[in-house]
Amino acid sequence: MNKVAAKSVTKSALLEMGMNIMLEKGYSNTGIAEILGALNIPKGSFYHYFESKENYAVEIIHSYDERQTADLIRILRDTELSPLSRLRAYCEEGKTMLSARECRKGCLVGNLSQEMADQSEVLRQELSSVLNKWQDMFIACIDEGQAVGEITKQFPAQALAELFQAGWTGAMLRAKTVKSTHSLDVFITVFVDAMLRAG
Amino acid sequence: MNKVAAKSVTKSALLEMGMNIMLEKGYSNTGIAEILGALNIPKGSFYHYFESKENYAVEIIHSYDERQTADLIRILRDTELSPLSRLRAYCEEGKTMLSARECRKGCLVGNLSQEMADQSEVLRQELSSVLNKWQDMFIACIDEGQAVGEITKQFPAQALAELFQAGWTGAMLRAKTVKSTHSLDVFITVFVDAMLRAG
Repeated sequence: MNKVAAKSVTKSALLEMGMNIMLEKGYSNTGIAEILGALNIPKGSFYHYFESKENYAVEIIHSYDERQTADLIRILRDTELSPLSRLRAYCEEGKTMLSARECRKGCLVGNLSQEMADQSEVLRQELSSVLNKWQDMFIACIDEGQAVGEITKQFPAQALAELFQAGWTGAMLRAKTVKSTHSLDVFITVFVDAMLRAG
Repeated sequence: MNKVAAKSVTKSALLEMGMNIMLEKGYSNTGIAEILGALNIPKGSFYHYFESKENYAVEIIHSYDERQTADLIRILRDTELSPLSRLRAYCEEGKTMLSARECRKGCLVGNLSQEMADQSEVLRQELSSVLNKWQDMFIACIDEGQAVGEITKQFPAQALAELFQAGWTGAMLRAKTVKSTHSLDVFITVFVDAMLRAG
């Protein structure tokens, strides 16, 4: 492996491990030393790739966003499903993942928002722009559902997307706290299947 | 002031300051040394009152719960308002408070749930039982609204309470992240004023 390739492997490994640990422990509880030890990377190298822990977190958020956006595109633009069924599929995937992890971890962007929005203006702005970007994708799907008469037109798509994201985030947080996916089931069957549906 | 009274003042001061700092910074970023320095209390005294930082956080959650429960009783059992108006009043108070704090801090129980549910089983259980207790108060209010025909009977009160708490928590988190109360306004006007209302 040449030097450039080796560097990019090291950086990817740092991002991958950082993402997993930050997802479980949050920003403050994530120790750089622990990650470097596990990967057998000297401390100097870390600062070669990242200016600071905050900058490392920004890059982790970018990596996480890339994956999530790919998932959102795959699910929310799946024309084999109706728009409302796509929203349901998104929730079902999230529920399956949380169950597989025994209701741990949840969503990195939600977790870091809660922990860091008041602590780091740099991270807050990153998280904010990711949330807005995801919201636009939900708005587009709801728009489509309204256009075909499947989703209620009683409220603007933007407001429904706002409620969808807020309700899902809150239901995930509750699931993590009480260690049960009941709140996710309620969200899916009452909010998605019934409240969003055109009457 | 006698010794017993002085002790209880010290403990209250520790709980009060810890609550404020934990509300802003979260559990991990809250330094005991900083709190003791600010209150001019020797380190030994802290361990006289609390076994550990975790135990300190448990007592802070109890204090916070006491206040929140008093607020919930005042608002959700205010017979001068209709049940749905009480839910709205609860949201309006929360929105006013978050605005006054420039969208910082939010709710201690929500914040600690996000940060600590996977980190401390002791805190998770405390937070879980507080959330369940609060939910029972929302269920009772929604039950009353369904009985008088103000709130939709299309879904059980328990499911509506679940959605109410999840949606409000998620909307608060979004408000903290994007530093705007828009998500709270959407929750109030669309979810509370329209979706919860009997058709």
